Amino acid sequence: MLDNLGDWRRTHSCGELRLDHVGQTVTLMGWAARRRDFGPLTFIDLRDRDGVTQVVCDAERSPEAHMRAKEVRSEYVIAVRGPVVARAASQRNPKIATGDVEVHAREIRILNDARTPPFQIEPAPGEPLAGEDLRLRYRYLDLRRPQLQANLRLRHRVIAEIRRYMDEQGFTEIETPILIKSTPEGARDFIVPSRLHPGKFYALPQSPQLFKQLCMIAGLDRYYQIARCFRDEDLRADRQPEFTQLDIEMSFITPEEIYSLIEGLFQRIFRLIDVELPVPFPRFSYAEVMSRFGTDKPDLRFGMELCDLRSAVAGTSFAPFARTLEDGGEIKGIVVKGGAGYSRKTLDELQEFAKRYGASALAWIKLGDDLSSSLLKALGQEAVVRIADCARAERGDLVLLVAGKAKTVAASLGALRNEIARREGLIDESKFAPLWVIDFPMFEYSEEDGRYYAMHHPFTSPVDEDLPLLERAVEGGETHLLGQLRAKAYDPVINGVELASGSIRIHRRDVQRLIFKALGLTEEEARQRFGFFLDALEYGTPPHGGIAPGIDRLMMLLVGTNNIRDVIAFPKTAAAVDLMIDAPSEVDPRLLAELHIKVER
Amino acid sequence: MLDNLGDWRRTHSCGELRLDHVGQTVTLMGWAARRRDFGPLTFIDLRDRDGVTQVVCDAERSPEAHMRAKEVRSEYVIAVRGPVVARAASQRNPKIATGDVEVHAREIRILNDARTPPFQIEPAPGEPLAGEDLRLRYRYLDLRRPQLQANLRLRHRVIAEIRRYMDEQGFTEIETPILIKSTPEGARDFIVPSRLHPGKFYALPQSPQLFKQLCMIAGLDRYYQIARCFRDEDLRADRQPEFTQLDIEMSFITPEEIYSLIEGLFQRIFRLIDVELPVPFPRFSYAEVMSRFGTDKPDLRFGMELCDLRSAVAGTSFAPFARTLEDGGEIKGIVVKGGAGYSRKTLDELQEFAKRYGASALAWIKLGDDLSSSLLKALGQEAVVRIADCARAERGDLVLLVAGKAKTVAASLGALRNEIARREGLIDESKFAPLWVIDFPMFEYSEEDGRYYAMHHPFTSPVDEDLPLLERAVEGGETHLLGQLRAKAYDPVINGVELASGSIRIHRRDVQRLIFKALGLTEEEARQRFGFFLDALEYGTPPHGGIAPGIDRLMMLLVGTNNIRDVIAFPKTAAAVDLMIDAPSEVDPRLLAELHIKVER
Repeated sequence: MLDNLGDWRRTHSCGELRLDHVGQTVTLMGWAARRRDFGPLTFIDLRDRDGVTQVVCDAERSPEAHMRAKEVRSEYVIAVRGPVVARAASQRNPKIATGDVEVHAREIRILNDARTPPFQIEPAPGEPLAGEDLRLRYRYLDLRRPQLQANLRLRHRVIAEIRRYMDEQGFTEIETPILIKSTPEGARDFIVPSRLHPGKFYALPQSPQLFKQLCMIAGLDRYYQIARCFRDEDLRADRQPEFTQLDIEMSFITPEEIYSLIEGLFQRIFRLIDVELPVPFPRFSYAEVMSRFGTDKPDLRFGMELCDLRSAVAGTSFAPFARTLEDGGEIKGIVVKGGAGYSRKTLDELQEFAKRYGASALAWIKLGDDLSSSLLKALGQEAVVRIADCARAERGDLVLLVAGKAKTVAASLGALRNEIARREGLIDESKFAPLWVIDFPMFEYSEEDGRYYAMHHPFTSPVDEDLPLLERAVEGGETHLLGQLRAKAYDPVINGVELASGSIRIHRRDVQRLIFKALGLTEEEARQRFGFFLDALEYGTPPHGGIAPGIDRLMMLLVGTNNIRDVIAFPKTAAAVDLMIDAPSEVDPRLLAELHIKVER
Repeated sequence: MLDNLGDWRRTHSCGELRLDHVGQTVTLMGWAARRRDFGPLTFIDLRDRDGVTQVVCDAERSPEAHMRAKEVRSEYVIAVRGPVVARAASQRNPKIATGDVEVHAREIRILNDARTPPFQIEPAPGEPLAGEDLRLRYRYLDLRRPQLQANLRLRHRVIAEIRRYMDEQGFTEIETPILIKSTPEGARDFIVPSRLHPGKFYALPQSPQLFKQLCMIAGLDRYYQIARCFRDEDLRADRQPEFTQLDIEMSFITPEEIYSLIEGLFQRIFRLIDVELPVPFPRFSYAEVMSRFGTDKPDLRFGMELCDLRSAVAGTSFAPFARTLEDGGEIKGIVVKGGAGYSRKTLDELQEFAKRYGASALAWIKLGDDLSSSLLKALGQEAVVRIADCARAERGDLVLLVAGKAKTVAASLGALRNEIARREGLIDESKFAPLWVIDFPMFEYSEEDGRYYAMHHPFTSPVDEDLPLLERAVEGGETHLLGQLRAKAYDPVINGVELASGSIRIHRRDVQRLIFKALGLTEEEARQRFGFFLDALEYGTPPHGGIAPGIDRLMMLLVGTNNIRDVIAFPKTAAAVDLMIDAPSEVDPRLLAELHIKVER
């Protein structure tokens, strides 16, 4: 038989009682985490979101409560009333905050029973968690785990701190629509059929980009929103089809002001985990990080920078290198300190790893007791030594080389650098190394499509000095100049994670027109997709810019996890497709008929 | 030619300067609200979100700035640098906060030009606003209007205050998914086709109901969220297909604790508009408000309560009344103080009004110098006087009567009561009259469908004492007992607006099973729609309950508007279907093909 809550009210949480409370009669409510039976004495560990309190049921002093306690099983929901008693010194439990006391149950109400959980919610120390698929299937049980609860509480505190800060800085929180007409990104939009306009559809926003710019045109001056965004892509460990970003836009602003806004914000957030970020963050141009780290989101917690080895092989007759030099490609390497002892197997693994990032081959030089190298036969000892010297490798080191197009060399060596740092334990996990990447190119050329794409998005402003280049490229036919244009764009990166993406936007109709033209949009297409926004640009648009830190990634960094499911309450999962919390479901055909939709299967 | 912002930074907003600032050189940025030319002197009213500052350009002292000022047109975006100067006493403008000073422009930068706005953004005093369709078409211009900006700033402050309060009360903000499997409500769900699972769909939530209950099962204890919700219905002045609610759920809770939580919250919110709400709110049962006011969201700012007139017509042979009495219907009236002078035309209008709410007729009695009544011929003078007495009408009053089914009588007289109060100016607009409506019925019988529906939703708990009735109704076949069941549901109402809907939820699997059965769901259907949730109920669900105040309605009440578009930044509108901000749009057929969808037209 279950009891009703009746008029009972909690007086304390299960994490709250201390020696100060001894003698008080308290009422606690929570879940039975564990019950231990010792004849006339029964112990229950009572758990709620705040902690665990030991409840003692004594057959002699409170026979009814003791009887009731015997019925309690794991995860039963119970309410307990009784006095707080100090534990004997020998029985205190320093591992829990309430370990100095216990509650002697005078009355117990069983508010709900529970089936035996399919896994231990909190495994004993040293025991592993149950498999993730099982835990996701019973997400509501996994969420009872103190670690996950702590993560969600931290997320709450982070978002509260963000709002406090944005409020102090004079921002207005504005809700922008989730059912919209279309987004600039287009291809990954979710679409939503309308019941009232059969055959027509809304889209879900990949970001509130145009709305936040409209807020600036509307004179709202400083906008922010913790915004839900949507992208119809496959799931990954660090990606969900819906995600949350702190969306920010400001009028009459320069990049400098955005840098200090964000640095101040990140400082405040990281203080929640007792980390003091150094400000200002160092700034690196895109060209510099690509050259030194092979990536636009470098992890600065360790060295192993890429070095240019072209000078060391100049004039070589070794065909792969010679061809690379001739084609304007790059030859670069990284030095693995003390890596001369790497086995052939390890080198093969690294080779495979590099190939996944497009490298055609990974050459190596070991400066062990003997010099050995995959290049020895092709280049000869002298050239190999020259390369090792050029890379500033020392005795005991390993040099890894890739030759090819700049993009491929950067991608493969940049990834290798991270991979080796991980393998070698070069990363101080307690360290946080922030930086700004700035001076991004406006456009990126796609060899595949034979055209330029916007590197950030088509609303990003070129730097003022480059405007004449833009005009020559678009109106004068010197298309190749697009590759030289620099954007007023800036990304903060911490520990190899790109935490946000931002830019000063185009506020002039004429410049926006040139950019659309550069991207191959006809006037008509531009008007069809962005007509409302283009009109808006003509009615007094202030200079403005913004940035949008991703909350999920930020949380993963703060919590120290690679699994996005550790920082959101109800993730979608590929493994458990029949769960309510994640899977799209079949829809009643009558509804589809009402929406004038037929589904082909 | 446009100027670049360059390295200029704002030093002050346009609403900030006072006599204290005189002598300082400042940099302001904003929109030219008005330019007035007096030969060598040009005045510009510079506007930003904080206010307006007068800028003076003097041809003699700053010829360049004066030249530049001549180019400025309405809504141009400009930056001004110069000293703050006190205005002569005779030229001070007490209507604006900065009216004691002006800025003498030494330099002006024109940051952007503007086409002539299609309407005056802030009409001169006494002038009406432009038509709403036009203003919605240029929403970004309408949003520059100080009143709309103030509304959005208030919304920001209200939501910030809500978060502060919820935080103080120990709540955790949890984000629940927007792409979900289905919602209990079903029929008005938006659906979203999935690219990765062709033929399958997500739904958008009409509320996070099941997720907040899952949060309680997960032991999160006190959940809240400012949640976006979606309902695929037609637009109305007070309704949008997406809306925002403060979603709250608590474990181990009684209605009393929710009442005081919400009363405290509303007090804090209303203090933002300098209103002190009296607490505790009076409580009325559903039966009482329906009987006295004909509605479950009564406006208590005026009287004119419904009176039961059956005793006054007992034994009548007048067929409509006799039949009503026989069928167990009701005969009720309201007294319009001093309404004896209403014209026939007005009475006809009220008759039409009442019919829209289902009344078959509206009878009337005028206690003017002569007694007159639509019932005189049918009932005779004596009976008519008896009715007027029963209604406690006095000389000069008007009595309006409706006979029929209880539901119709309540609906038509309840609506008439509000309509007449509005016409007669009986409502003190400065007053806020809150109440709780409690003791709702669990179920409502639909004559049309011949079955019972949940009055709140199928997760609302019956009161404990009524559980045996539920069992008899469902398992014992005494279906009619469903109509007698009372729910643990409660709605706060202010000034005739239902501001929230809440209930204690079912936390026991056996009770939930009975409710689904009562609603005609088979075990299989229940499992198909709510299987995941039903499973969750079996693993230790605590007693819990919640409530969800609607933010848009609350804002309308605070701002004093009937137009929801006054309190949200980017509303959807029926009138302007070609705007980016509102309309569903045609989708590229290739995308539909990718989604395996064909649209029938």
